[in-house]
Amino acid sequence: MATIRDVAKKAGVSVATVSRVMNESGYVSEDTRKKVKDAINKLNYKPNEVARSLFKRESRLIGLLLPDITNPYFPLLARGIEDEIHKQGFRVILGNSDEDMKKEINYISTFIQNNVVGIISTTNDPEHPNYQNLQIPVVFLDRISEKQPSVHADGITGGRIAAEEMIRRGSTEIVLMKGPAHIRPAQERFQGAFQFLQEKNIDFHVMHTSSFSFREEQQGAADLFKTYPQTDGVIASNDIVATAVLHEALRLGKAIPEQLQIIGFDDIPQSSLLYPALSTIRQPAYEMGQQAAKLLCALINKKKIEEKIIKMPVTFIERNTTRKVDTYG
Amino acid sequence: MATIRDVAKKAGVSVATVSRVMNESGYVSEDTRKKVKDAINKLNYKPNEVARSLFKRESRLIGLLLPDITNPYFPLLARGIEDEIHKQGFRVILGNSDEDMKKEINYISTFIQNNVVGIISTTNDPEHPNYQNLQIPVVFLDRISEKQPSVHADGITGGRIAAEEMIRRGSTEIVLMKGPAHIRPAQERFQGAFQFLQEKNIDFHVMHTSSFSFREEQQGAADLFKTYPQTDGVIASNDIVATAVLHEALRLGKAIPEQLQIIGFDDIPQSSLLYPALSTIRQPAYEMGQQAAKLLCALINKKKIEEKIIKMPVTFIERNTTRKVDTYG
Repeated sequence: MATIRDVAKKAGVSVATVSRVMNESGYVSEDTRKKVKDAINKLNYKPNEVARSLFKRESRLIGLLLPDITNPYFPLLARGIEDEIHKQGFRVILGNSDEDMKKEINYISTFIQNNVVGIISTTNDPEHPNYQNLQIPVVFLDRISEKQPSVHADGITGGRIAAEEMIRRGSTEIVLMKGPAHIRPAQERFQGAFQFLQEKNIDFHVMHTSSFSFREEQQGAADLFKTYPQTDGVIASNDIVATAVLHEALRLGKAIPEQLQIIGFDDIPQSSLLYPALSTIRQPAYEMGQQAAKLLCALINKKKIEEKIIKMPVTFIERNTTRKVDTYG
Repeated sequence: MATIRDVAKKAGVSVATVSRVMNESGYVSEDTRKKVKDAINKLNYKPNEVARSLFKRESRLIGLLLPDITNPYFPLLARGIEDEIHKQGFRVILGNSDEDMKKEINYISTFIQNNVVGIISTTNDPEHPNYQNLQIPVVFLDRISEKQPSVHADGITGGRIAAEEMIRRGSTEIVLMKGPAHIRPAQERFQGAFQFLQEKNIDFHVMHTSSFSFREEQQGAADLFKTYPQTDGVIASNDIVATAVLHEALRLGKAIPEQLQIIGFDDIPQSSLLYPALSTIRQPAYEMGQQAAKLLCALINKKKIEEKIIKMPVTFIERNTTRKVDTYG
């Protein structure tokens, strides 16, 4: 089978010239164009589509730093970013930081070495000096920064809604779970729920969770029901923690939602697959990824930015770990 | 705060020279080194770690094509790849193909444009001409190719084990679900189970599933129990399909595993979080990613390859949708 090199040889031109003719891009004289087309016909050259664009050189890469793509929340962000970035002609280099600043730094370096034109980062430390002196735009995603361009969900409102729905649906012995201290969005959702319960003069217990890992949270869930056996409502710090609580409750033979209501946070895909399916506060992860990508592309293209700190709305997703409101409302 | 440019100016050298001194790489005369160090001291220059490695230019990118990172099976592959590639100094450009050949071609082009040194692809068509004429190594992952370097799980054995465990644990009215025809690993696991049941002269029903999407499979699960209400064992084509069957069975009030056993395939993270937790055939996704990355790096580095087609072992993960074997074995 004839290759692009054979065509170039036969036409007496360079491979790049053949590519320009095929792509109808760049200047090629009419005479040369004809020579190339004749060679293509004579050799019966069928360029595959990869070869066709081999020479359209445009390095349009952006770097994406996520804590861990295997945590079910992050693929949604990544997909939202990639779909949007792709539309605008950019590609994504992916890095998992494991929330380890050393790894982050290492990735930022290699992003720069690879000439990325922008970075989207889900870091716990947007104010870190390593993000300050970069010559390219950075957007922080799912993390809160007062100064830097960023996209995050409205955790305060999310926490308030969770508490409100819990009360409306009749829970009186509520445990409010407080997520890891170093993750600011986790603290915001906690504050939102906390404030609401305070304002309404409702008694509740606070339990701290140190991680968002299911294995560790299983122990936390066991402790919860040992410490507060009367619990009839749990506002969990995220869906993974809520799942651990749900498992433990089912193991203890509690009727859900009759004896115990649970509300999670995130709405990761597996939450609708649990049985009973989990009621939760939905963060629009895919859309957050899209917004971050749009913001970054606008910064890269030096467009006017109306809003560089974007707060996305959250919604209550009613499933089967909460009671129907008719009965109580 | 002093920048690397200030240091270069003060020392009367180029920024690259300052970088070489900081990184202790490349030749710098003793005299120049001293000048640079003096400038650093005088200006009290504190390089951040990003700046420090800004000039270690090595573009070592590999392209990764997955069908969809939001399908919970793929992040494990991606993470296995990234961890291994990272160790060997490479970085990953990620693309979601949605099993659409046009998107795949588009990505392969942009990978090449970005000078990737290798590609890992989960494609349904490894023999497609677009993969043949590339000048860089390609490894196919979770897909089967007779000729190309590839890593996949032993689906035939997986299917056999699923059927064997189902029989050992006492199911007699078995439905075997056959996954999408165009996904070869799905067909292999089906064939494995099919052959085992044939050999043992066991009657069973086959149901076709057209996708691996949960929403579509919910309807499939409803049809299953309408068509074969006596079913007491389901061998599902993957964990998502198994989850749909589990939901429908619980909705119909079936006792699991007493009245109905279910075995999935994959062992995606959410399978252990279901209630009851899903028994399944585990594909070592993370390790498969690692192996593919090792194989690709070996090809890139032109090392001797002992085995270019790697078949990974699968294992039965006993959870709570199958009965304990003591009772029956």
